[in-house]
Amino acid sequence: MALPKTNIAGCETVAVSANCDPRGCLFEIYRQSWPGAFPTVQWNACASNAGVVRGAHVHVDYHEFYTLPRGRVLLGLSDIRRASPTYRTSVQIEWADQDGFAVAIPPGVAHVVLFEEDSVLAFGLSDYWKAEYDVVGCQWDDPDLRFTWPTRPVVRSRRDAAAGSYGAMLQHYEELLARINGHHK
Amino acid sequence: MALPKTNIAGCETVAVSANCDPRGCLFEIYRQSWPGAFPTVQWNACASNAGVVRGAHVHVDYHEFYTLPRGRVLLGLSDIRRASPTYRTSVQIEWADQDGFAVAIPPGVAHVVLFEEDSVLAFGLSDYWKAEYDVVGCQWDDPDLRFTWPTRPVVRSRRDAAAGSYGAMLQHYEELLARINGHHK
Repeated sequence: MALPKTNIAGCETVAVSANCDPRGCLFEIYRQSWPGAFPTVQWNACASNAGVVRGAHVHVDYHEFYTLPRGRVLLGLSDIRRASPTYRTSVQIEWADQDGFAVAIPPGVAHVVLFEEDSVLAFGLSDYWKAEYDVVGCQWDDPDLRFTWPTRPVVRSRRDAAAGSYGAMLQHYEELLARINGHHK
Repeated sequence: MALPKTNIAGCETVAVSANCDPRGCLFEIYRQSWPGAFPTVQWNACASNAGVVRGAHVHVDYHEFYTLPRGRVLLGLSDIRRASPTYRTSVQIEWADQDGFAVAIPPGVAHVVLFEEDSVLAFGLSDYWKAEYDVVGCQWDDPDLRFTWPTRPVVRSRRDAAAGSYGAMLQHYEELLARINGHHK
């Protein structure tokens, strides 16, 4: 299939290799040398049941390289970087394991994953996860994210269910970013 | 649970973090800084159905970091490195996604995976996969591997079904190793 485009600056879809046969599928999900990829020091995997929603979350201090070795999701991406040429651009991508692509998500791009089947999402991180920066998010269906979601019950974490508004997320993101940039001076 | 030991030199089990809740499980499957881990430039994911066997395979030119984000397997490991202090040591490990460990497999350690449930195995590689070196293997139930397998029908690839004996694998491995070491001189 043709690679979908996100139209968000720095948020690239990357072709991955999928070889399926009666045993299952073997995927090359990441090569550091691929255009659009970057060095990773950490990998996480998220096994989620159908009907689960994770997000909206946004990271401040690392890029993520999302891959989908099993299942089907609806991914929402929204650029909240005020300085970005694509600030406020939002996109939703239907994504199944055999579609043959990965998605590179830079810091400052808010993301929501709706799991439409039991799925495994595996993702590389450009820097180590740190609890103190993993706090930025908002309601997955906040109108300012400009997503359209199916109307059916979903399962969320307590944290996601208690998240604030898009406006509060934006402010929080910018405060954290200023703090991190201050540390780096 | 306590980390299982392989008793094979350089073949380490590594504790990983598993956080499960009603949505599913979020795993930290790899940090480059973990003792027993190593830098990875490639990641593969293998989604396999229950009853599939992959192997025996042995790599010549890279280490693999095996993780199991979903499912349950029976993993067989056997040291075929003549110079290793644990040459001919074999071990089998029952392994389920929530057991909280990964397995680092060095070159020269033959491995077989029997998938006992629909599973996803994700693994990091210390160097890029090259087709010309991915040719070394033998029958998964060759007695010289010293494994004990359940007696039930399994699904294999044509390549695995046509593989030769342990002895032929050993010879092939050592020839390839000599060729690679020759290239590096």
